Amino acid sequence: MSQVSIMNEEIDIVIGAIQSDLTSFLEDWRPFISQFHLIIVQDPDLKEEVKIPEGFNVDFYKKSDIVLTVGSSSVSSLFSGYSCRYFGYLMSRKKYVISIDDDCTPAKDTNGNLVDVVAQHITNLKTPATPFFFNTLYDPFCKGTDFVRGYPFSLRSGVPCVLSCGLWLNLADYDAPTQALKPEQTNNRYVDAVLTIPAKTLMPVSGINIAFNRELVGPALLPAFKLAKEGKFRWETMEDIWTGMCVKVISDHLGFGVKSGLPYVWRKERGNPVDSLKKEWQGVKLMEEVVPFFQSLIFSKEAVTAEDCVKEMATAVKERLGQMDPVFARAAEAMLEWLKVWNAVRSQQVS
Amino acid sequence: MSQVSIMNEEIDIVIGAIQSDLTSFLEDWRPFISQFHLIIVQDPDLKEEVKIPEGFNVDFYKKSDIVLTVGSSSVSSLFSGYSCRYFGYLMSRKKYVISIDDDCTPAKDTNGNLVDVVAQHITNLKTPATPFFFNTLYDPFCKGTDFVRGYPFSLRSGVPCVLSCGLWLNLADYDAPTQALKPEQTNNRYVDAVLTIPAKTLMPVSGINIAFNRELVGPALLPAFKLAKEGKFRWETMEDIWTGMCVKVISDHLGFGVKSGLPYVWRKERGNPVDSLKKEWQGVKLMEEVVPFFQSLIFSKEAVTAEDCVKEMATAVKERLGQMDPVFARAAEAMLEWLKVWNAVRSQQVS
Repeated sequence: MSQVSIMNEEIDIVIGAIQSDLTSFLEDWRPFISQFHLIIVQDPDLKEEVKIPEGFNVDFYKKSDIVLTVGSSSVSSLFSGYSCRYFGYLMSRKKYVISIDDDCTPAKDTNGNLVDVVAQHITNLKTPATPFFFNTLYDPFCKGTDFVRGYPFSLRSGVPCVLSCGLWLNLADYDAPTQALKPEQTNNRYVDAVLTIPAKTLMPVSGINIAFNRELVGPALLPAFKLAKEGKFRWETMEDIWTGMCVKVISDHLGFGVKSGLPYVWRKERGNPVDSLKKEWQGVKLMEEVVPFFQSLIFSKEAVTAEDCVKEMATAVKERLGQMDPVFARAAEAMLEWLKVWNAVRSQQVS
Repeated sequence: MSQVSIMNEEIDIVIGAIQSDLTSFLEDWRPFISQFHLIIVQDPDLKEEVKIPEGFNVDFYKKSDIVLTVGSSSVSSLFSGYSCRYFGYLMSRKKYVISIDDDCTPAKDTNGNLVDVVAQHITNLKTPATPFFFNTLYDPFCKGTDFVRGYPFSLRSGVPCVLSCGLWLNLADYDAPTQALKPEQTNNRYVDAVLTIPAKTLMPVSGINIAFNRELVGPALLPAFKLAKEGKFRWETMEDIWTGMCVKVISDHLGFGVKSGLPYVWRKERGNPVDSLKKEWQGVKLMEEVVPFFQSLIFSKEAVTAEDCVKEMATAVKERLGQMDPVFARAAEAMLEWLKVWNAVRSQQVS
C-alpha cells in the first residue's frame, strides 16, 4: 500500500443502528475504530433503546434528535430503516466518512489477519483514482504495483478519489431472487485488489461497507429512493443502489473517481430471502428504468459542485421518471428535501 | 468456475519463437498444452534453428514458410520479432487461439497448484462478458459468484466474450522507465478474479498471455504498430498495446466483450531495462496521441464485421495520425496489408 497518513481528526465512522444491541458489533470492531469519532444513528422505527458499550467516542442520535434538527416531516421520508445512516452523514463535519452495516464483523485476509477497514478505505480515498484508462494490474497506487506498459503518462497522476466501495465475504449482497434460488451460495473468494471503476461505467454500489470524501461529494450521498415495501433487510432495499448511481454520475461529471474492491467485511446472515421475494421484485423491475436514466443523464456546465448536480438531477428525475412510478416522484422530492436540510445544518455549523 | 466444455479441436496454441531453444519452455507447459494443436512461428530475424521437443502436435513455420505464404515483402513489415506470432494467428483454422510469450512458465495459484491457462482462458471466452454495467463481485460467470443486488436483469445475459487478457506474476509488464526506476519491483499479488473491461474503456493489452475468439475478431488481432527501434524485449515493443486497442474499440462497436484477470503466467526476467530506455521513450510519447485517437474513433453503421472495422480504422489512422509520425503511416499500411494476406489465406483454406 502507498504510504498514506491517517489522521484521526479527519474521519467519522457512521453506523446506522438497525438492531438495538450494538455491543458485540462494536466489540468486534473496537481494535480498528475505537480511536476515531463515531456517529451512531438509531433507526427511528426502532423502539428499543440502543446499547453501546463503554470506551467509544460517540455522538448518538435517536428519533427525537432527528426531529429537533430537521423537523418531524423529514424523519420518515429521509431517515428511516437503513437510511438512518444518512442523518449521520448530515451531522458529520469531517473530511472522510466511513460507514459499515451493523450486521458485519471484521473479515480476515488470505494470511488470516483481520482487515483494517479504516486504513484501507482511507488509503483508497487518499490515493488518486484513474477512471480514464483501465490499469490491468488494478490500482497502481497499491503497494507493489504500478502502471502497466502502455498506460499514458499524461493520465498517471489520476484524479481525486471520492468514493471507496468495499466488499463482503460470507453472505454476498445478492438480490432476494438470487439469494432464494441459491441459498447455499456464499462469497468465499478474497480478491486482493482495488480498482477504479472507469468513467461512464455504472455499477451497483452496496451501502454495506463504504467510505467517501464528504467535502467533495457529501451532498450526493443522499437518501432518496425508497421502495414502497422497503424492509429491514438489505435485499429489501435499493436506497444504496440509487445513491451509488447518483455519486458515480456526479463524480464522472466533476472529474472525480470511484474505487471498488478492498477492504472486505464479514457479513452475517440475517432474514429469509424467500419471505422477501415479493417485496424485492419491485426494485428489480424499477432498475430497468433507473439504469438507462443514469446512463444518459447529462449535467450542465454550470453544475460545478455536487450540490449543483443533485439539484439538476432531482429535476431530471421528476421530469423523466416521475410519471412512471410514484417511487420516482418521491425520490425527486426527497433529493430536494435533503439539500434543504443539508444546507440548514451547514449554516448552523458555521454560526 | 462455470461448467464449460473444452473441446481440443476448437483450440490452437500459438507460440512466437523469439528464442531458439523452446525445450524447457515446452516441457514446462507440457501438462497443459500437449493435447492441443500448436502453431509455432520462428521470428524471421532469428538465425538459429528452433529446438522443439518430441511429443507435441505442432505446425512449425520459419521464414521461408512465411515468404511462401505471404510473399517476401510482408515478412519484415508484418511478422518480425514478437509479431511473428501473428503469422500463427493467420494460419489458424480454429475457433479459439491462445498465445503465450516464450519466456513464461506456468504460475501457481494461492493454493500452490499450477494454473491451467487453457482451461481458464477458454472459460473466460465461452462464458458471456458484461460490458454495460460493472459487477462489483467481478465476473458473475465464475464459480461461486453471481450478479450483485441492483444489477439490471436485462443485462445479465451478457454478450459474447472475444478476448481474454491474462496476467503475469514475477516480472510485471512495466515500461522500461518504470522497470529501470524500480528494478526490485516484481508482481507478487495473485488477484483471484476475472472481470469484464467496461464498454468504451480502454486498457493496455499485453500480448504476453492472451486468448481470443478467432471467428469473431480474428482480423482485428493484427500486426500493425512497430516502433522505429523496436527490439526483442517486451518493454521495447508497443505492437500488442496497439492491437489491444484495435480489438477493444472494434469489440465495443460490434457489441462484444473483453475480459481481463485470470489466468496468470510466471514471467522470467529477460534483458536490461536501462539499456532499453532510449528506445522506449518513443512509444511512451506516441501513446499520448494514440489513446485519444482510439477513444474518439467511431465506426460507420456499415461496419458489421471485424474486417470492416479494420478497414475503416486503417483509413482513420492514415488521415488523423499519418502526418504526425511515420510510424502511424506505416501502421495504416500494415493494417491493409494484413487484411490482404488474411483474405488470401482464407480463400486458399476454403479451396
